[in-house]
Amino acid sequence: MKDVLEYLDTNVDAAVDRLCDLIRIPTVGTDPKHDGDVRRGGDWLAQTLRDMGADASVRDTAGHPMVVGHMPGPADAPHVLFYGHYDVQPADPVALWDTDPFEPVLKQVDGDTQIVARGASDDKGQLMTFVEACRAFIATRGALPLRVSFLFEGEEESGSNSLPAFLENTAEELKCDLVLVCDSDMWGRDTPAITTHLRGLCGQEITISCADRDLHSGMFGNAARNALQVMADVVASLRSPDGAVAIDGFYDDVAPLAAQTRAEWDALSFDDDAFLADVGLTTPAGEVDQPVLHQIWSRPTCEINGMWGGYTDAGFKTVIPAQAHAKISFRLVAGQDPAKIRDQFQAHVQAQLPEDATVEFTDHGLAPAWALDRSNRFLTPALQALADEWGQSTTTGTGGSIPIVGALNAALGADALLVGFARFDNRIHSPNEKYDMSSFVGGMRAWARVIDRLSHGH
Amino acid sequence: MKDVLEYLDTNVDAAVDRLCDLIRIPTVGTDPKHDGDVRRGGDWLAQTLRDMGADASVRDTAGHPMVVGHMPGPADAPHVLFYGHYDVQPADPVALWDTDPFEPVLKQVDGDTQIVARGASDDKGQLMTFVEACRAFIATRGALPLRVSFLFEGEEESGSNSLPAFLENTAEELKCDLVLVCDSDMWGRDTPAITTHLRGLCGQEITISCADRDLHSGMFGNAARNALQVMADVVASLRSPDGAVAIDGFYDDVAPLAAQTRAEWDALSFDDDAFLADVGLTTPAGEVDQPVLHQIWSRPTCEINGMWGGYTDAGFKTVIPAQAHAKISFRLVAGQDPAKIRDQFQAHVQAQLPEDATVEFTDHGLAPAWALDRSNRFLTPALQALADEWGQSTTTGTGGSIPIVGALNAALGADALLVGFARFDNRIHSPNEKYDMSSFVGGMRAWARVIDRLSHGH
Repeated sequence: MKDVLEYLDTNVDAAVDRLCDLIRIPTVGTDPKHDGDVRRGGDWLAQTLRDMGADASVRDTAGHPMVVGHMPGPADAPHVLFYGHYDVQPADPVALWDTDPFEPVLKQVDGDTQIVARGASDDKGQLMTFVEACRAFIATRGALPLRVSFLFEGEEESGSNSLPAFLENTAEELKCDLVLVCDSDMWGRDTPAITTHLRGLCGQEITISCADRDLHSGMFGNAARNALQVMADVVASLRSPDGAVAIDGFYDDVAPLAAQTRAEWDALSFDDDAFLADVGLTTPAGEVDQPVLHQIWSRPTCEINGMWGGYTDAGFKTVIPAQAHAKISFRLVAGQDPAKIRDQFQAHVQAQLPEDATVEFTDHGLAPAWALDRSNRFLTPALQALADEWGQSTTTGTGGSIPIVGALNAALGADALLVGFARFDNRIHSPNEKYDMSSFVGGMRAWARVIDRLSHGH
Repeated sequence: MKDVLEYLDTNVDAAVDRLCDLIRIPTVGTDPKHDGDVRRGGDWLAQTLRDMGADASVRDTAGHPMVVGHMPGPADAPHVLFYGHYDVQPADPVALWDTDPFEPVLKQVDGDTQIVARGASDDKGQLMTFVEACRAFIATRGALPLRVSFLFEGEEESGSNSLPAFLENTAEELKCDLVLVCDSDMWGRDTPAITTHLRGLCGQEITISCADRDLHSGMFGNAARNALQVMADVVASLRSPDGAVAIDGFYDDVAPLAAQTRAEWDALSFDDDAFLADVGLTTPAGEVDQPVLHQIWSRPTCEINGMWGGYTDAGFKTVIPAQAHAKISFRLVAGQDPAKIRDQFQAHVQAQLPEDATVEFTDHGLAPAWALDRSNRFLTPALQALADEWGQSTTTGTGGSIPIVGALNAALGADALLVGFARFDNRIHSPNEKYDMSSFVGGMRAWARVIDRLSHGH
């Protein structure tokens, strides 16, 4: 592997420059005014793959485009499909950024260099670690040691709505032995991890309506139903005082955690207090009988992501708002059916409404949770390759959602290895998101080793 | 009175033109970007009074300016102070207006002409009825039959914060026998009213903070306290299921309604169902044991005027917001101390907060409620003058707040007659606000008669 690793070490600056070029395209997939930027991001990636010799193209969907690419390899080697997403979260609140969210800066912090920008970590930095590892094989050996396909999505942050139909139409083309994903975290600063648990997602937007217009609180105060009061009552009803989600049947289908997994998580010696203290908190807010690691990895949650209505500008307006809005999402765990949770939620909201209040629901994506079959034949060589580069490696869970995994399981029957080089403090989805140079360089080198071991280990 | 009334009838078009000139100045006092416009509105009024021969000027305050003017009258006649406000509510949601909110249009509806614009009714149209009545006396007789002072405020819609200090400094100059106010409604289409009850106001903005940054719901969902969930819990705790405000001690100081007043209100045969149906509602939302007229005139309320936090734009963002905000106001009744209510509210909110949640409060004005002393010597001649013009008149209550009244009581010791020509369906504070030409013309003529009767009846 010396040739490939040396190539990566010698060409780090060029790799960073390419990553920065991609970051500068503000591919905010959730905001329609950035639709053109998202497409530019896809074009950039397809061109990058073609420059490396891949057969790559941008494919239209009902939403944002997919990028698909293929690079040949030995006929008897495994065929892996690498998935990443090139859309990013909105940058707001923009005022809390120290620098322009879409103009990456290199910042020296604690002996490492951080690449600071929206998407530097999630997921542009991470997906480029794999692309650059492939580039190094091509540059040094003229070919990859296994067959690689690429699938880059532009809707991950908005619920991957176009993915199921796209996979259905391209299942033959994307058929593979293993999916590789780089959208997860390391376990600690020096320990790369393969994630075996993902939470699913059910996103809902609700609009509650009362009177047929906004009203003056002097003329109508008390007598007219206040849509914001109704919204508060509804949202308050979603959690019990013991921290549990208070929707009938919500926990019915939650798969119990395997004893082995529970033991492995215990061995991680997770520090609840430090985890919360890092973001200014002291007390877990979820189910009181669940440790923090279980609250975030193996227990479903209901979170209020946005809520608004009435007068929200400077000063004051004594209005009784006719409408109130909320964006609410559920992180789900293995066993739960996202559509069933959505139906239970909608029934719960309907049941809370007083006279004169009505509700409309808008879907913002459904994705099942996922857990890796621990007998997967690629797991051990991949863990070994990561340990070759970093000295150690581990499996973990995560509380996040990567819809592609469940969708690929369903469409292609291929399981996935979720290999992560992001650090826990990368501030993804928050102002001043960053990716450490140690993640980027170590990630590229580790992927090269994984590609090598997977090509031998089958 | 024939000369004065004929002058008013002959010069209606010019009076409407002047009102439209005033409306076109977007005097949105709650929004700092309109500060210059508010001042222009004050300048316009001072100039208008000077054109009529008044000694008038714009007076600076810590907030928006006051306009003060004086017109002489017979030495033995009463001295009345007319109060109005020239600031208006914000026009938003602007998209719901049929025409430009600040470009008045005359619209034929049901055999009357409506002046449609923000402020057409509240309070520019109403205050100009009095100004034009004074103009008619000057034009026809060269002088007013009583001494009149004018006080026009630019902060009524934002809590009248500068008023108490201003009154303290100008108490000698503004000393009078009676205050006249035109900022209230008629009772029904053809019955002008003198309002004897006003609710007070306590405006509060709260910001609830949890984590030190916005968080990813995948990484922290369940474990991290969600500021919007806390806000919903706090707001939900403000009302009981029986419709009462659920703050300890909130009703302790509410003055009982006088038996005579209760009987008068019963005689009005108020139609609860029609009142609610007019805005698309069927069921009163306040205390279940209180009739609607009492809910809005004599019972205090707590209304959520605005609430916001997290991601509120198009699409979806799976964020756990670090902060949540709400604008909350109380309409108070005679007997309640606004500062005491504020303190009770703040203590209530503090008591609801779970671990890791903190709250900051911002004051948005305090004003006591007010009820007229029914033995006031000007009440009967004023009711008679209104009946002379319209055929009948009555006293009523109102659920709104006019802070000047309580403030004037405190500063000058003069009680007030609240004479209203607005119709109940004027959509004040809402899109497509309007003032009927019958209100404007009948109001000008009625004011001329009131001025005449007050000058004789002392």
